[in-house]
Amino acid sequence: MPDEMSRPLIRGRGEGGSFRHLEASVSEPHAPVIGILGTGDFSRSLARRLVFSGYHVVVGSRTPKRSVALFPDEAEVTSQMEAASQADLVFVAVFPEHHSTLVELKPVLAGKTLVDVSNSLQINRDGPSNAEQLARLFPESSVVKGFNTISAWALQVGPRDGSRQVFLCSDSQKAKRSVMQLCHRMGFIPIDMGLLSSSLEIENMPLFLFPSWRIPVLCTLFLFIFFYLYNFIRDVLQPFVTKGKSVFYKLPIETVNVTLPSVSLVMLALVYLPGLCAAFLQLWWGTKYNRFPSWLDRWLTRRKQFGLCSFLCAVLHAIYSLCLPLRRSARFKLINLAYKQVKDGVDDSWVNEEVWRMELYLSAGILALGLLSLLAVASLPSVANTINWREFSFIQSTLGYCALFMATVHTLFYGWNRAFDPEQYRFYLPPTFVLVLILPFVVLLGRLALFLPCVSLRLSQIRRGWEKSRHIRFTLPDEDGRNGLEDISNV
Amino acid sequence: MPDEMSRPLIRGRGEGGSFRHLEASVSEPHAPVIGILGTGDFSRSLARRLVFSGYHVVVGSRTPKRSVALFPDEAEVTSQMEAASQADLVFVAVFPEHHSTLVELKPVLAGKTLVDVSNSLQINRDGPSNAEQLARLFPESSVVKGFNTISAWALQVGPRDGSRQVFLCSDSQKAKRSVMQLCHRMGFIPIDMGLLSSSLEIENMPLFLFPSWRIPVLCTLFLFIFFYLYNFIRDVLQPFVTKGKSVFYKLPIETVNVTLPSVSLVMLALVYLPGLCAAFLQLWWGTKYNRFPSWLDRWLTRRKQFGLCSFLCAVLHAIYSLCLPLRRSARFKLINLAYKQVKDGVDDSWVNEEVWRMELYLSAGILALGLLSLLAVASLPSVANTINWREFSFIQSTLGYCALFMATVHTLFYGWNRAFDPEQYRFYLPPTFVLVLILPFVVLLGRLALFLPCVSLRLSQIRRGWEKSRHIRFTLPDEDGRNGLEDISNV
Amino acid sequence: MPDEMSRPLIRGRGEGGSFRHLEASVSEPHAPVIGILGTGDFSRSLARRLVFSGYHVVVGSRTPKRSVALFPDEAEVTSQMEAASQADLVFVAVFPEHHSTLVELKPVLAGKTLVDVSNSLQINRDGPSNAEQLARLFPESSVVKGFNTISAWALQVGPRDGSRQVFLCSDSQKAKRSVMQLCHRMGFIPIDMGLLSSSLEIENMPLFLFPSWRIPVLCTLFLFIFFYLYNFIRDVLQPFVTKGKSVFYKLPIETVNVTLPSVSLVMLALVYLPGLCAAFLQLWWGTKYNRFPSWLDRWLTRRKQFGLCSFLCAVLHAIYSLCLPLRRSARFKLINLAYKQVKDGVDDSWVNEEVWRMELYLSAGILALGLLSLLAVASLPSVANTINWREFSFIQSTLGYCALFMATVHTLFYGWNRAFDPEQYRFYLPPTFVLVLILPFVVLLGRLALFLPCVSLRLSQIRRGWEKSRHIRFTLPDEDGRNGLEDISNV
Repeated sequence: MPDEMSRPLIRGRGEGGSFRHLEASVSEPHAPVIGILGTGDFSRSLARRLVFSGYHVVVGSRTPKRSVALFPDEAEVTSQMEAASQADLVFVAVFPEHHSTLVELKPVLAGKTLVDVSNSLQINRDGPSNAEQLARLFPESSVVKGFNTISAWALQVGPRDGSRQVFLCSDSQKAKRSVMQLCHRMGFIPIDMGLLSSSLEIENMPLFLFPSWRIPVLCTLFLFIFFYLYNFIRDVLQPFVTKGKSVFYKLPIETVNVTLPSVSLVMLALVYLPGLCAAFLQLWWGTKYNRFPSWLDRWLTRRKQFGLCSFLCAVLHAIYSLCLPLRRSARFKLINLAYKQVKDGVDDSWVNEEVWRMELYLSAGILALGLLSLLAVASLPSVANTINWREFSFIQSTLGYCALFMATVHTLFYGWNRAFDPEQYRFYLPPTFVLVLILPFVVLLGRLALFLPCVSLRLSQIRRGWEKSRHIRFTLPDEDGRNGLEDISNV
Repeated sequence: MPDEMSRPLIRGRGEGGSFRHLEASVSEPHAPVIGILGTGDFSRSLARRLVFSGYHVVVGSRTPKRSVALFPDEAEVTSQMEAASQADLVFVAVFPEHHSTLVELKPVLAGKTLVDVSNSLQINRDGPSNAEQLARLFPESSVVKGFNTISAWALQVGPRDGSRQVFLCSDSQKAKRSVMQLCHRMGFIPIDMGLLSSSLEIENMPLFLFPSWRIPVLCTLFLFIFFYLYNFIRDVLQPFVTKGKSVFYKLPIETVNVTLPSVSLVMLALVYLPGLCAAFLQLWWGTKYNRFPSWLDRWLTRRKQFGLCSFLCAVLHAIYSLCLPLRRSARFKLINLAYKQVKDGVDDSWVNEEVWRMELYLSAGILALGLLSLLAVASLPSVANTINWREFSFIQSTLGYCALFMATVHTLFYGWNRAFDPEQYRFYLPPTFVLVLILPFVVLLGRLALFLPCVSLRLSQIRRGWEKSRHIRFTLPDEDGRNGLEDISNV
Repeated sequence: MPDEMSRPLIRGRGEGGSFRHLEASVSEPHAPVIGILGTGDFSRSLARRLVFSGYHVVVGSRTPKRSVALFPDEAEVTSQMEAASQADLVFVAVFPEHHSTLVELKPVLAGKTLVDVSNSLQINRDGPSNAEQLARLFPESSVVKGFNTISAWALQVGPRDGSRQVFLCSDSQKAKRSVMQLCHRMGFIPIDMGLLSSSLEIENMPLFLFPSWRIPVLCTLFLFIFFYLYNFIRDVLQPFVTKGKSVFYKLPIETVNVTLPSVSLVMLALVYLPGLCAAFLQLWWGTKYNRFPSWLDRWLTRRKQFGLCSFLCAVLHAIYSLCLPLRRSARFKLINLAYKQVKDGVDDSWVNEEVWRMELYLSAGILALGLLSLLAVASLPSVANTINWREFSFIQSTLGYCALFMATVHTLFYGWNRAFDPEQYRFYLPPTFVLVLILPFVVLLGRLALFLPCVSLRLSQIRRGWEKSRHIRFTLPDEDGRNGLEDISNV
């Protein structure tokens, strides 16, 4: 839900109670003088924060008289020229399209550090970045890119909430380091991103929209549509066409509910498939030092997202299933059944096999869901950061494969003997669960293969740095003193 | 569940295994000498931590002989006078009501930094704070407030778990900075809160009890009571009074279950209402630089809490609904229905409209709940910190409005044509869902209005700093180089 | 789900897009020279990261020619001797079993700082640690243990994701501090663990597998097995033996579902029992300065885990219960009931008492689950870190006891009058809920006792440092200025 970050920014005078102290906060005598060009929201919050961390702040405005009211008393508001010449370090908080209006300041800015805080409006793929353009305009100044990922709000309330990381890059290590110190003193965590060439990446950061989720989500959608249509044809269209029986009421819930578990199980298998591919590739190559094909690389880095998509589908499947008995349709069916039984005078309709089938696949399903939930919780950033590598790989690999196994068992019990019942092959289409089970079976068998002593021994050697091509005694001392744990086989 | 923080503190000698290293830890030669006045739990943990970060520690006790056993060997335990005169920086860990007992130390403490770590027992609204009183007692010393939010336990185990932030304030930048360095070296994150005048705020911090939740929770309770009574009158009282039919068994579950979704939907609408008000105010003013009325300001900062309350109600509603078929009452009704059908000899009681209605509102409800869950997960601090502003506003605004929309659809399908059925107006009271839908409709229509090209264009201009009063070309260069993204319209 | 940490490491040349900047990153002129011995994954990632933080890096390899291709251009790859002599600070990234191969470097490494990054393959309980062995090999060098908890992957992507803490220990404060600075500059958070004697602990860190969960999980399993067997005998075996009625279909779901709540409630009681013991011990001793017996100490630190186990069981119980009406068995029973009713010509089978019982215990159960969920959410690290002590103890203690109370009420309503029905004592075994209720009753009564004015007053005195043995006026000034809040009574 929207939180404080999204609160509208407060005007110069009259902060909320929590800014009492700012009003009176004094800048200390010998602190470096920080200049700010521009008088927008960000400039104001930045000025406030700097004053508040004990810096002497000079703001350069086109209209000092009008702007002075917007800034805390301790900040000196003057002309751009004046500010630029006084300051040791200058924040450029002006729209990139107006950087050119600053060229007049070139001489006074020469030799000084300029911090470009600008954002773009849309993702810029091929550059040059705003920071690089600024650097071209001021060749004698050293430009540092940063603070663009920090919201004016985060500056105001201080780094108490919201992310505290400030990504910095510059071609001048000296300039970068001075800005880093500034960050530390303001209570942020500077992250060195290297040379100005990465400014493009930094400028795009706030514009990305879940890049790592694109493929997994598309994959989920595709599978959903495919299975939904498949089930529609088998469960709704077929009875309508063949027997003229209209069961379209199944579309909103029942069809969705048989589709979701299929998607979930396939996605879960897709989480563990790349790890297997990687392992087999390494065995085949006889080394861990060949690079994986980029598709595999990308896939490996997306496993978390694949897993969470699978989890989401599993949870929805659970909720949909639990809703089934709520529905009027279920009630009507039940009553009609009762009616029928009475008419037929059957005094016990109990079918032991059906009962057992359902009890078994339900409990397998619940256990699978429980395991998946543990995985999901463990993938929360704050939880993942508190567990060590071994615990991480225990959860994500051992428990993960257990979940995959239980989900497969769940599906098998659900299928029971239907795979062999010709009745089920409507329009010659096999029941959905038959299609769904293929991938999980492949993955589970692949994993079993890796458990064979010879294979697993060789793999662990490779993971410790052994290479088919070289002699082992010779290479080991060159390896670093870390067991091969932190490797994909574990996850 | 209670965690390690709440573990009782360990006495001087014989720590648990994880403190082995403390025992022998040596303080380095030229480290500054840190004094501690007081020998309580906090003093001990502080001493241990300081020794352990390589400081030379001198503890001032009224009863050095008795106290020495409580402190690590490396810490020197002596008289208060002795400690005060040796130390460069002195922690005052004595109950505030006994600060006066330290006046004898005034001369030796002159010119030194005193750190007041004291807490109050209840919230102190009008001051003066303990720290300010201490400062009056020792005018020649520079007082720094801090560490009161850190528990003795957090000091013992080190900043590995629990919050690492130490809020500091002081009138002397120099003193404050030296304490900040100390913090860094102890592994904490110092947060500068400005002048000593904010010590009151810092002292109250550990005493606040969810201040930001008060209004949202009260609001939820009020709505709950209102709708519960309303439903009670319509669903329980009316049949009892008019037909003498006693259905009081509905009180614990069914009535609660029709009340919860009403509360949830209204609360969700209240999450997005203030954002709209703000947007329309800005359009009306033609600037984003007017301050919002304080009630709106507060409301905007509480949206997260409103949203989570709404989510809680939604989840409870889901659980209650899923429990319905479990109940004996449901079973009895079902059997009686079956019995009736048999008696009447109706061989198919299927009513297609009822079936569709239920399938539709159930699935709409599930989707709404799914979306709300995503919002809730995204509002976890650790998740919120890993996403950028655009992603944040996508989830909280776009997905949020989708959730509101789905919840409204859910309610509409639930209502079906009942709004037009006179039967439903028991005691001339309209069905609950009619009342509930008013606010969501208002919000959704308001949002649609903001989508009108002319309106949205003007709004985005305003958000980029344009003001009706000024000429646009002139003002822009003075704006900072940030797109208007980080603004309320997005959330 | 597996996340980026588990991504296979990238070979020297040709990083993924996010490493563009590394390629060109230049090390600054006067930066200290860092040496690395070993050329494994970790060495490479370390080299990359160091270069990237502006250090001059010299890698010592047995086979410089072969290895050079694996490292970034800026890193100089040379012989081990050469590297060791050039560097001011040397990372030893060689398998511990090959440390001995480095003795030839002894003279050149004398007086320098060696950082041992090695991991063990299994937990080493009695030492000496790898670091201590290295220290014996190089007595003239000062050895620092650290970085072994950091994965090569975390080094590559930088400390953006994953844990940022680097645990360090050394007998030389000077060496330790220089490594700490290095950490800070690389963007990690150094945590001082004291002397080299704690290197064993640090080396074991990455090998622990949820040590704090062992006892709680075993306890849960034991309780589960016990209650499962107990219920099996009463609900399945007894009818089979006595009436020859086979209800084995109950094993997968129904028996599990009556077992889970029993485990959950007992575990929840076990969360609050140790706190009570501690409080009563303190009252008995008349002081808070006696150490608790170690079993109690350990128990107190495990309450969070006990609570989460209890929560897990409660959630599973909820899911199992909600699945009940889904099952074929439920449907068959229902239809047979309807059939029976028709045959008997009973036109209304409604039993008011049964209805009320179920409505009441269901709603009590839902509320208990809701409260437990709040506790669980509040125990997420990121949430726990945002709340102060008072809020924490309000949730964990006040809400926690409410949850325990509601769960007890849930069980009582469930039991209704069955405890007094001889029918229920199959095989002379009392109904499960009777056994289950004992512990919760003890805990709730104990808590009530602590509410007695005299008792609670005395306890709060003790928690503020009062001791039976000493006179109160005298001791208080020696106590630190913190209220007794941060103490176990609150949780």
